[in-house]
Amino acid sequence: MKYVYQFNEGSKELKDLLGGKGANLAEMTKIGLPVPQGFTITTQACNDYHQVNRGLTGDMLEQILSGIDNFEELTGKKFGDNMNPLFVSVRSGAAISMPGMMDTILNLGLNDETVDALARKTNSAQFAYASYARFIEMYANVVCKVPKYLFDVILRRYAKDYNEITLEQLLDLISDYKLLFIEETGLVFPRDPLEQCKNAIKAVFDSWNNERAVIYRRLNDIPNDLGTAVTVQEMVFGNLGKTSGTGVLFTRNPATGENDIYGEYLIDAQGEDVVAGIRTPNEISTLKDVMPTIFDELIKTAKMLENYYRDIQDIEFTIEDKKLFLLQTRNGKRTPFVGVKIAVDMVEEGLITEEEAIMRIKPESLNQILFPTFTKETLKNAKRIGLGLPASPGCVSGQICLNPKEINKYEESILVTLETTPEDIEAMHCSSGILTCRGGMTSHAAVVARGMGKSCITGSHDVEIDLSAQKVRIGSIEFNEGDSISIDGSTGKIYQGVVKASSSGFSTEFTKFMDMVDKHRTTEVRTNVDSAKDLEKAIMLGAQGIGLCRTEHMFFMEERINHIREMIISSSTKERKIALDKLKNYQKSDFIDIFKTLDGRPLNVRLLDAPLHEFLPREELEKQKVASSLNVSINIIEKRIQELHEFNPMLGHRGCRLAITYPEIYKMQANAIIEAAIEVQKQGIDVNLEVMLPLIIDLKEFQVLKVDLEKIFFTKIEESGIKIDYKFGTMIEMVRGCLLADEIATEADYFSFGTNDLTQVTFGFSRDDSVKYTDEYLKKGILEYDPFKSIDRKGVGALIETACQLGRETKPELKIGICGEHGGDPKSIKLFSELGFDYVSCSPFRIPTARLTLAQLELEK
Amino acid sequence: MKYVYQFNEGSKELKDLLGGKGANLAEMTKIGLPVPQGFTITTQACNDYHQVNRGLTGDMLEQILSGIDNFEELTGKKFGDNMNPLFVSVRSGAAISMPGMMDTILNLGLNDETVDALARKTNSAQFAYASYARFIEMYANVVCKVPKYLFDVILRRYAKDYNEITLEQLLDLISDYKLLFIEETGLVFPRDPLEQCKNAIKAVFDSWNNERAVIYRRLNDIPNDLGTAVTVQEMVFGNLGKTSGTGVLFTRNPATGENDIYGEYLIDAQGEDVVAGIRTPNEISTLKDVMPTIFDELIKTAKMLENYYRDIQDIEFTIEDKKLFLLQTRNGKRTPFVGVKIAVDMVEEGLITEEEAIMRIKPESLNQILFPTFTKETLKNAKRIGLGLPASPGCVSGQICLNPKEINKYEESILVTLETTPEDIEAMHCSSGILTCRGGMTSHAAVVARGMGKSCITGSHDVEIDLSAQKVRIGSIEFNEGDSISIDGSTGKIYQGVVKASSSGFSTEFTKFMDMVDKHRTTEVRTNVDSAKDLEKAIMLGAQGIGLCRTEHMFFMEERINHIREMIISSSTKERKIALDKLKNYQKSDFIDIFKTLDGRPLNVRLLDAPLHEFLPREELEKQKVASSLNVSINIIEKRIQELHEFNPMLGHRGCRLAITYPEIYKMQANAIIEAAIEVQKQGIDVNLEVMLPLIIDLKEFQVLKVDLEKIFFTKIEESGIKIDYKFGTMIEMVRGCLLADEIATEADYFSFGTNDLTQVTFGFSRDDSVKYTDEYLKKGILEYDPFKSIDRKGVGALIETACQLGRETKPELKIGICGEHGGDPKSIKLFSELGFDYVSCSPFRIPTARLTLAQLELEK
Repeated sequence: MKYVYQFNEGSKELKDLLGGKGANLAEMTKIGLPVPQGFTITTQACNDYHQVNRGLTGDMLEQILSGIDNFEELTGKKFGDNMNPLFVSVRSGAAISMPGMMDTILNLGLNDETVDALARKTNSAQFAYASYARFIEMYANVVCKVPKYLFDVILRRYAKDYNEITLEQLLDLISDYKLLFIEETGLVFPRDPLEQCKNAIKAVFDSWNNERAVIYRRLNDIPNDLGTAVTVQEMVFGNLGKTSGTGVLFTRNPATGENDIYGEYLIDAQGEDVVAGIRTPNEISTLKDVMPTIFDELIKTAKMLENYYRDIQDIEFTIEDKKLFLLQTRNGKRTPFVGVKIAVDMVEEGLITEEEAIMRIKPESLNQILFPTFTKETLKNAKRIGLGLPASPGCVSGQICLNPKEINKYEESILVTLETTPEDIEAMHCSSGILTCRGGMTSHAAVVARGMGKSCITGSHDVEIDLSAQKVRIGSIEFNEGDSISIDGSTGKIYQGVVKASSSGFSTEFTKFMDMVDKHRTTEVRTNVDSAKDLEKAIMLGAQGIGLCRTEHMFFMEERINHIREMIISSSTKERKIALDKLKNYQKSDFIDIFKTLDGRPLNVRLLDAPLHEFLPREELEKQKVASSLNVSINIIEKRIQELHEFNPMLGHRGCRLAITYPEIYKMQANAIIEAAIEVQKQGIDVNLEVMLPLIIDLKEFQVLKVDLEKIFFTKIEESGIKIDYKFGTMIEMVRGCLLADEIATEADYFSFGTNDLTQVTFGFSRDDSVKYTDEYLKKGILEYDPFKSIDRKGVGALIETACQLGRETKPELKIGICGEHGGDPKSIKLFSELGFDYVSCSPFRIPTARLTLAQLELEK
Repeated sequence: MKYVYQFNEGSKELKDLLGGKGANLAEMTKIGLPVPQGFTITTQACNDYHQVNRGLTGDMLEQILSGIDNFEELTGKKFGDNMNPLFVSVRSGAAISMPGMMDTILNLGLNDETVDALARKTNSAQFAYASYARFIEMYANVVCKVPKYLFDVILRRYAKDYNEITLEQLLDLISDYKLLFIEETGLVFPRDPLEQCKNAIKAVFDSWNNERAVIYRRLNDIPNDLGTAVTVQEMVFGNLGKTSGTGVLFTRNPATGENDIYGEYLIDAQGEDVVAGIRTPNEISTLKDVMPTIFDELIKTAKMLENYYRDIQDIEFTIEDKKLFLLQTRNGKRTPFVGVKIAVDMVEEGLITEEEAIMRIKPESLNQILFPTFTKETLKNAKRIGLGLPASPGCVSGQICLNPKEINKYEESILVTLETTPEDIEAMHCSSGILTCRGGMTSHAAVVARGMGKSCITGSHDVEIDLSAQKVRIGSIEFNEGDSISIDGSTGKIYQGVVKASSSGFSTEFTKFMDMVDKHRTTEVRTNVDSAKDLEKAIMLGAQGIGLCRTEHMFFMEERINHIREMIISSSTKERKIALDKLKNYQKSDFIDIFKTLDGRPLNVRLLDAPLHEFLPREELEKQKVASSLNVSINIIEKRIQELHEFNPMLGHRGCRLAITYPEIYKMQANAIIEAAIEVQKQGIDVNLEVMLPLIIDLKEFQVLKVDLEKIFFTKIEESGIKIDYKFGTMIEMVRGCLLADEIATEADYFSFGTNDLTQVTFGFSRDDSVKYTDEYLKKGILEYDPFKSIDRKGVGALIETACQLGRETKPELKIGICGEHGGDPKSIKLFSELGFDYVSCSPFRIPTARLTLAQLELEK
């Protein structure tokens, strides 16, 4: 088993084995770019290491040693050598980028002897000893888990930071550090660079399973068995004074997608300084003035790399005493919006094909493109209070949260913090947006937020945090924790209070991209909407019809809810019918609007599904209002509420069960729907009507209801003298409905799976309650993912498959669709596509995701 | 197709075709007993009649006519003849007896001419004209649906009833009746007996589908497609004066099972008078003095019939002018208690075999044997206020209900009424007991109540009802509707207020019978109990072990609930453990008692299943009590209750989900169980331990929990130095558990199906809420029966079958049982037996039913 690859042995194709970093360093070496020497230990080694209970096997060790030998030969330097010592960095690097999640050790190889050699070589004892101190600290922390703050305490005795310490103090500091190391670990700080190196490699392997890495993988659906590679690379020093520096560069602007070099650098600094956001770095274009030759070389190399990799590159570089070194290149993280722009641009530039462009965009990321923005009008009255770097676009409002651990206190929160660290990953995920005082556009906060599609402003000097008082001053205004602010991550502007946001239009590139997508898609995408207004938006987003029109939502407006309350409270069928007649008129006019907006696209109406008690008033005042408006005593209202109370409403008197006991409700709806259809069709606008019954568990149940409805449709259509086609279908959302799908299909024209309910009853998890324990199920690995987010293949998926098979046995041409929340989830859509569904239906904002997912699945075939 | 059978063409084997009545009349004719001539139209004719939209086909009509021809030839009488006219009764008779549910017409053949012939023949114009009037009324009511009360109104103008009217008045009455007939039907009353007969036959066929017959069939699980036969039989008249009479006779006492003739008769009366309960009849033994010869003939015939049919017979007879005629014989309805006694007696008398005895008892009927009785002690302070006939045994208390339509107003009700009619069938079913003022031991109320196993007292002259005032006087005490009384149906005694009842022991015959049953049974029967006390009772009833010990029930006693509340409210794992330690001691001592009582029989413990909020206080006072006893503020209690509130508790945080989030609860239980087991085993009493996890949906879930529990078991057993075997199993009660049963079986030693929960989630019916609509589902025929009572074969049954198959694929020896409510339901047990379950487990009082059902199923194989 080959565990160790010298850079010149690898290539970018070996990403799975060498990790993204290792593979790309090898590739750059291969094409002759200035990369410091090194080798990479494979991801396989990581997995084997964990397999044998966290141990480097003899085989691994041997290869690592011979790797170092080879390495020493290539550089002419030697570990621990007094004259020409080798210093290395030991870095993690998985096949899928997990920025900042795992550990890194720099300056490895320093000890009491080699530090002097470094001092000589760099002509700076100050630099060498500071590096040594930092190495001790980093090694102790990463390898031996000695808490960082213990070192901070000692450092503070001498100076504010390493930049302000004298050489003399540094010497004392180092002996203090060594003592601390002995106290905390019971061991002497290792002098042998080889021992340092072995321990560092083990620590990096271990960091694959640290808490934040595990959480990151869970949040990003990265398998746990990928493992990380470890790259051991010769150190180059960006902090050797004014002729040295370090920086990060994107080949295009990752925030706008514009085809311009974009990046930041610091003079006399190590790479960690840029990423950590402790010093605010300089814009890359200014490097032209400071080091023109280096700048030209950098730009040329960057463009070459973009062409070579055929994607936007995120490049780390270090300048050691006027010499440029490349330490990493990877595909640049970008906002979804920018991702689309770049993909489309590159197709137009001839750099990639349409298919490549389609496969390159993560379907989930499209959800974020449609997030709302603050429009000019809503901003008119908004008070701008500060400015920061526009790190990740998106306009959000939320309550200020100063403690990442308490992020869940608020429904909508803005995490306000000095700077984020990898420990904050979960809090960032739960927040609505992030605002930091420090760090640049490539700081941790910025990179992670962009990956998550969270709105983020970094490095705002207008923000001052007082943690002890739990207050923040932004500009001239003081806020308490919990006060509301708004941020615009595309402009960096901060506003006081809640600023209303509205949906954005979308770019030309987005439209072009979705056109490409649709060229490669055949499965229909519909939407779940209940009004002509939402429908307009959905059609703009590509909806090909309505897959779920929830009729109960039409009843909730002020005047209407009164009539439905009349219906519920009425004690006779006759009274109920009078109330229903009033509702019918509202419903009919809604359907007319919807049919017109659909303009011939299919409308799938679900008849009333909600339990009646949902319509009853809850507050005392509301009850009194209803009582007086209905001219009955409040006791009657109370009594009816009592009667309608259910212990388990999800399993209660709702859906078609309502129509079995109160047939007049569905009859009213049938009348409204068909009258609307006739009226619209008469105006020359085509209607395409499907009516479905929710919660069906038995063929007879479906028949009993269908007979009544068809009679109404038939009669009205006969009377009208025009021709209207319609289909009767059913939701399949109860387990018994799945198991008896063959019988039900004898009468049903189509099935629409209601996967929310089906998931609830298959697991026995109430969606509203299960949050109390599903977290623990995910943590303990009992569930791999939330079954309400992505369909559970083993259980719910098996039922769906059974229902499809049974249904098609009866009726091979049976139309099958999905209208549960899973209809917009890529992982779930994969199953529906495999089962040959005719359409998926989802919320409007998820339509682009569904379209892209389906196109990708069809391209994969 | 042969539709019509003369009595001499049929036999008792043709019951399905001729109905019980027709087949037995044919049989009695065949063996030479005095049966009036007649023929029977088959049940097939009834079904065909309904098939062709309620019409007599040409084929049927032809056969009926030729049947009548034949009939006229045999009797020498002729329809409509002026000299020797034929009069017939037209009666219903299904294969399964449905007493009083369908229609009957007597005296058919009367018209303006034949009435005079009858007057001459019987020497009584009074009798003949009264018969004619009654015929018109009955015909009008049954055939033309003219309401009875309209005739009553006319009759009242002349006299109180037919017995007090003069001949002259009768003539006027008949013309008034004829006029009423024209007004109500638009037709002249038919003179032609053939026309009368055809219409009567159609009316009887129609009555198969009248409302009360349909309800009766539903309540008694009688298929709707059996159809009724129609028997047309020559009239004999029991109301020809003092030498005539009519009566009902049982070959053994149907209320006690004693081998003595038992029955009632009336002199000068028609059969309907005895059944209707309008006149209180005489005890049969007194007939010996009135008509000694007839009496002897009757007794001889009765005993002969019992031996012939090898079962207790219920015989209708009429004496026409000193001549005995048999009008019907059928197997006598009896109480379950008596049914068992008679079966055992007959085995001992050598009349039937053990197998026959076993097959003869309806398993459900055994439930009732164990109903409670008032014991001497409880009766000490009870005030006896009246007496009636002991019509159907059983001791019950309830609130007085005077209006059968409102029976559901009360949880426990005694229906108090003048007399019951077939319309009351549903109210009787819903009542706890029945008390009537009129009628004998064979009145409608008595017969139906015995069939239902309801306690019933009939003909109590101590009871006076005032409907307008909604009051009842019983003896000297006046009660309002809603007041409580108690009745003992085995003694006829009525008591004031609620008298406590306790469980009865059981008879020698019952014990003998159950011994026979067990000889023919191999599947194990266990019980669902949670205490040693209930367990004792269950073992007495034949439990072979505990199939479900619900540990949460052990927590509900005063002192214990406090500790569980401590546990719930505690904010740290440490505090929680302290509370749990206290609970452990209680639980351990409970298990010691249970193990001792089991004495080696298996104990299947289910670990905590109930959601925590079930243990929290609901009432304000209770909350305060808990707050002060736990020394916390009431706000903390309120907050915790808020936190634990669930929208759908059935789908909530319960079962093994509790142990995933709070592992220390199951650990406490495991410690209590194994410590108890060790202690008992050390005393030399064998323990047989099975532990099961509720609500399992995934193999990993089971594994995570099992590891913790096994560690505890293993350690404690090692420490104890003795050997104890145990099994770990799981409830299969969630749909996902069924679908993933193959995976789960890799770790589970056994499955126990929880069919209550499985039914809830498969239908999506909350058991607590579904009553609101399931009634409508049953009425509309969408469901054939309540799936919470008998297992739904198509849906839930299919899942159970899948789970069994999958489980056994993994582990062929997998033990499978059931512990849901269906474990004691015969129809459901049939499925479990077919699927090869190792055991069923049910409530103690259902054990005999389960034992008998299994024996019958095994005998059927």
